[in-house]
Amino acid sequence: MNSKPMNVLWIMCDQLRFDYLGCTGHPTLKTPNIDRLAARGVRFSNAYVQSTICGPSRMSAYTGRYVRSHGSTQNGVPLRVGEPTLGDHLREIGVRCVLVGKTHMVADTEGMERLGINPASIIGVHSAQCGFEPWERDDGLHPDDGGPMDAAYQNYLRQRGFDGKSPWEYWANSAEGPNGENLNGWLLSHADKPARVREEDSETPYMTRRAMEFIEEAETQGRPWCAHLSYIKPHWPYIVPEPYHDMFGPQDVQPAIRSEDELHNAHPVYAAFTRERYSRNFSREEVRQRVIPAYMGLIRQIDDQLGLLFDFLERKGLFDRTMIVFTSDHGDYLGDHWLGEKYLFHDVSAKVPLIVYDPSAAADATRGTVCDRLVEMIDLAPTFLDFFGRSAKPHVLEGVSLLPLMRQHAVDWPRRHAVSEYDFATDRARVELGLSVQQSRMVMITDGRFKMIDIEGFRPMLYDLERDPNELADIGHEPKMADVIERLRAAIMRWYRSGRNRVTVPDSWFSDDDDLVRAGGDPTLRQGVIIGYWDEAELAAQQALLKAHDAARAKERELSV
Amino acid sequence: MNSKPMNVLWIMCDQLRFDYLGCTGHPTLKTPNIDRLAARGVRFSNAYVQSTICGPSRMSAYTGRYVRSHGSTQNGVPLRVGEPTLGDHLREIGVRCVLVGKTHMVADTEGMERLGINPASIIGVHSAQCGFEPWERDDGLHPDDGGPMDAAYQNYLRQRGFDGKSPWEYWANSAEGPNGENLNGWLLSHADKPARVREEDSETPYMTRRAMEFIEEAETQGRPWCAHLSYIKPHWPYIVPEPYHDMFGPQDVQPAIRSEDELHNAHPVYAAFTRERYSRNFSREEVRQRVIPAYMGLIRQIDDQLGLLFDFLERKGLFDRTMIVFTSDHGDYLGDHWLGEKYLFHDVSAKVPLIVYDPSAAADATRGTVCDRLVEMIDLAPTFLDFFGRSAKPHVLEGVSLLPLMRQHAVDWPRRHAVSEYDFATDRARVELGLSVQQSRMVMITDGRFKMIDIEGFRPMLYDLERDPNELADIGHEPKMADVIERLRAAIMRWYRSGRNRVTVPDSWFSDDDDLVRAGGDPTLRQGVIIGYWDEAELAAQQALLKAHDAARAKERELSV
Repeated sequence: MNSKPMNVLWIMCDQLRFDYLGCTGHPTLKTPNIDRLAARGVRFSNAYVQSTICGPSRMSAYTGRYVRSHGSTQNGVPLRVGEPTLGDHLREIGVRCVLVGKTHMVADTEGMERLGINPASIIGVHSAQCGFEPWERDDGLHPDDGGPMDAAYQNYLRQRGFDGKSPWEYWANSAEGPNGENLNGWLLSHADKPARVREEDSETPYMTRRAMEFIEEAETQGRPWCAHLSYIKPHWPYIVPEPYHDMFGPQDVQPAIRSEDELHNAHPVYAAFTRERYSRNFSREEVRQRVIPAYMGLIRQIDDQLGLLFDFLERKGLFDRTMIVFTSDHGDYLGDHWLGEKYLFHDVSAKVPLIVYDPSAAADATRGTVCDRLVEMIDLAPTFLDFFGRSAKPHVLEGVSLLPLMRQHAVDWPRRHAVSEYDFATDRARVELGLSVQQSRMVMITDGRFKMIDIEGFRPMLYDLERDPNELADIGHEPKMADVIERLRAAIMRWYRSGRNRVTVPDSWFSDDDDLVRAGGDPTLRQGVIIGYWDEAELAAQQALLKAHDAARAKERELSV
Repeated sequence: MNSKPMNVLWIMCDQLRFDYLGCTGHPTLKTPNIDRLAARGVRFSNAYVQSTICGPSRMSAYTGRYVRSHGSTQNGVPLRVGEPTLGDHLREIGVRCVLVGKTHMVADTEGMERLGINPASIIGVHSAQCGFEPWERDDGLHPDDGGPMDAAYQNYLRQRGFDGKSPWEYWANSAEGPNGENLNGWLLSHADKPARVREEDSETPYMTRRAMEFIEEAETQGRPWCAHLSYIKPHWPYIVPEPYHDMFGPQDVQPAIRSEDELHNAHPVYAAFTRERYSRNFSREEVRQRVIPAYMGLIRQIDDQLGLLFDFLERKGLFDRTMIVFTSDHGDYLGDHWLGEKYLFHDVSAKVPLIVYDPSAAADATRGTVCDRLVEMIDLAPTFLDFFGRSAKPHVLEGVSLLPLMRQHAVDWPRRHAVSEYDFATDRARVELGLSVQQSRMVMITDGRFKMIDIEGFRPMLYDLERDPNELADIGHEPKMADVIERLRAAIMRWYRSGRNRVTVPDSWFSDDDDLVRAGGDPTLRQGVIIGYWDEAELAAQQALLKAHDAARAKERELSV
C-alpha cells in the first residue's frame, strides 16, 4: 500500500462460459494471462449471474440488486430512473466510476422526462448510462438496419479506411468470399473465416487501448477510480480476425454435454427452448464444429490483449493499488443440453468465471487459491465499496462483500443460496406455451448441491449437482425429491421476503434507539408525539426516563472523546 | 352524463374502523350522510388496506402498488423518487390531481438531490407530495416539540385569535381545566372534555371548507380533476369540540371483541403487541369508556361536514359527473383483542369502510347494494383511470378497476386474495423479540374464508373468518390446518412472483409481435440482429416471411380504415 489512490479495474467479457479458460480446465484453450491473474488472486468456482441474459444480468451487476428488485427484466427494458447504481455510491465517496465498453443499459427516457432531467446534463448522462461516466460506451451491435452508426468504434473504423454505412457490420463482423464479396458474419456458417479487419482494428484490441487511455488520463488526476472494461466478445457475431480465426479447429471442440434422455418426457419449458432456431442449429455437430473454434479464438484474443493490459498496469505500478476483477455476464450453451445461446440455468449458462485480485497484503494468504463458496455477481458492488473502505449499504445492495473471503482463511460466509432470474416474455417459447407476459418468469435457486427452477404453473426443474454434475437429469418430477423441492421453495420464499425495496433509509434508521427501547423508553416522545398515554403521571415518568437516558448517553460520549 | 368534465372526489378518513358507521352496522352511531352516499353507490364490505399504518397504507393508495413494490414500509420512510403515482398517471391524461389534507408522504430529498430535482419546481413539488398538487397539505400532527409550525391551519388558528407556538396543540387538541389551565389532549384521560376551539374552527370543518374552495376554483377552469379530501380524524389525539364531546357516552361503548383465550399460548408476535403501552391502556375498560365516545364524536362530526359538502356538490350539479369515494387508511383496535392502535391484521384494523358512488347510468343497477367481493385499497387508482376512460396500466398498478363490479351484475372478479403488509421494525415488539430490522416484516393474506399472517421465523397466525368471524381463535398451530396454511403460503408465493417491478414498459411491449411469432417469424430481424442462423438460405426464408407478414398486416390496416 502507498499513499496514491486505490482503484478498481473490473473486466467483464460477454457470453464467456466458465469452463472456457485454461485455469478453469479447458483441455486445449490456453489463457496464460487470465491464469496469471488467477494465480495472484482468488478464483471463485461457484459464481452465478443474476440473470442469464446481458441486460438484466448487467443491471444486477451495476446496481448490486436482483432483477426482482431493479426491474429491468429483459434486454431493452429501461432501468427505472432513480434506481441506485454502483456509480452513485462510488461518486458519493469521491471515486470516479467509468465505463469503457458495453453495459446494455437502456435509459428510462420517459421517467427522466417526467422528472425533468435533461439528458445532456451530467446527472442525465449518469441516469442514462446506469451510473457510469461513459468514457466509451459501445454495446457491440451496430447492424446496418438498426444500431447506432455514430459509435466511436464506427468512426475509428472509418478513419482506418473501412467504408460503408456500418463498417462494424461490413468489415469487423463480416468475412470475404473468394471473389472479394461480403460474407455475412452473423451467419454461423461463416464462423471459420477471418473477419475483414486487421487484428489491431478489431473490437477487443480497440477497447483495450481505450481502457489504457482512460487509465493514463485518470492517473494524472490523482483521484481513485473504478473502471469497467467491458468487452463485447466472445458474444456473437462469432467471427474473429487473423490469426485467431484458425488457431483452433475441430480437434479442439469438446463433445457436447447432452444426452438423448434429456429430450424424453422433458419439462415443457425446457422442451420449448430446445425447439428455438438457435438450439436446433447448435444441436447439429456441423454447427458446433464451425462456431466453437471461432468462439475459442475470440477468447484467446481477449487473453492476449489482457496480457498487454496487465503489462501496462505492471509498468505503471498499478498492481500495488488496484483491485482487478475478471468475469463474464453469462455463459453460452454452444449445443450442450440441445440448446444454443443462454436463458436457461445449466451451469454453462448461469455460472461465470470470476477472478478477484486484491492488492492488499491481507489477501496474500489466499493468492492462487480457488474458493468454492456460492457467490453472486451482485457481490461485486459491495466488494468494491468495502475495498474503498465504505459501508456495503445493505439496505440497497443485495450482495455481500467478498473481501472477508479474500482476506481471511476461515469465515462464516452468509450466502446459503444463489439466485438467478429470467423473464422469457420475449421468447418464442412463451408464445408456444401460450403463457401470458406476466407469467413468463423463471427463478433459479441453488444451494450448491441442488439446483431448482421455479416457474408459475409448472412443476419445478431440479438437478442434483453432486450426483449429476453435468446436469443431464431433471429430477423435478420424482416423488422422492419432494422434500428437497419443499426446502428450496421455502428458500425462494425467504429470498422474496428479503427483497431490499426500502432503499431510502438504512436499517440503523430503525434501530438507533434500540437501547432506549430496551430500557423501557419511548423514542416517539422525542418528536412530541404522545401515543397511548393515559395521564400526566404516566407521561412524566416516561419523559424523565428519556431525559435520564439521553443524559447518560451524552456522558458516555463525553468520556469516550 | 353531460359535456362538462368528469371528476373524482376521494374522501379518506384516518384510523376509521369499518364498523363505526351507521351503514356498516354500528348500533348507536348514526352517520346519515355517509349512509346516503352508500344508498346512491356501492358499499364494499370486504375492502382491505395494503398496510395497517398511515404512511405505507397511503403510499399504496396513492401509487396503486403494494408496499413490497413501492418500498415505503413505515411512517417516515421516504417514498423513493420516481415511484410512479396516481397523480403522474392522471396528469398524463390532463386531469388535475389535488390534495386537500393528509398524505403522510415524506419526500426522498436525497434521491431528489441525486437527480438534481429542485424541490421548489413544479416537478419537485409533485415528487415531494406523492404526485399531488398540494392545494392544502396537512398531516394533522403539529406538536409543539416537532411538527411544522407554519401549516395553513396553524396560521388560520392564529388569525382566529388562538395564540402560542402551536395553536394546533394548545387549542384544537387540548382541553381546559376548571381553572382555565391547559389539559393535554394527547392524553387519553382527557378524551371526554371538549377541545378548546369552536367547532367551526376545528380541523374537520376547516378542511371541508378548503375542499369546497378548491372545487369552486377548479370548476371555473373546466378541467377534469381528482381531489383527495383527506381528513386527519378520527385519528388521535382523541379530542373533539362541543357539541360532539358529549354526544356519546358509556352507553354507546360496545363490549370489547376479545377473549381471555387469546392471551393463552398466544403467538409471540401477537403477545408482544399486547404488551405495548397503548394495548395495555386500551385493554382497561376505563380507557375505552373515556376514549370511544370521543372517537364516535369525531366520526359524527365528519358525517355532519360531509352533509354540508354533499349539499354543496348537489347545488353545483356535481353528483351528475363526479365519482365520490369514501374510505379510510386503516382501522383502530380500541381495546379489541387486547390491543390498541392498529398494526396487526384483525378486521378492525386491516379492513376499512369503502363506498363508491359512480354517476354513470351504467351503475344505476347497483345503487344501494353491498358488494362482498374481496377488494383492496390499491384498486382505487386503476378505478379512477378507468373512470376517466384510460388504461389501468397493469404493468405498474397492482390493483384492479372496480368499475366492472359497479356497472355489471355478474362479473368474473379476478381478485382471489387480499394482501396487507406491516413492517414492525419501529415497534418495541421487534426489540422485545430480538429480531433484526430486516426480519420484522409481516404479510397478511386472506381468501375471504381464512386469514393468514406470515412472519419469517415464526409459525403463521391463522383465523377462520367463517367459523370465527370475530377472529378470537388463532388456529395457526393446529396440525389439521396444515393444508390451508400450505395453500395460503402458495398464494403468498404467487403474490411475490407477480410483483410489478418492471414499470418502464407495458406488457404489450413484449406481445405486440405474438402473431408474427405464431406464424413462425422472428421479430428480432426487424432490428437487423440475426441470432442463430446458419446460412443465407435460412435467413432469406425468414426475411421473406417477415416481409409477407408485414405486408399482410399493412393491407389489413388499410382495409379497416
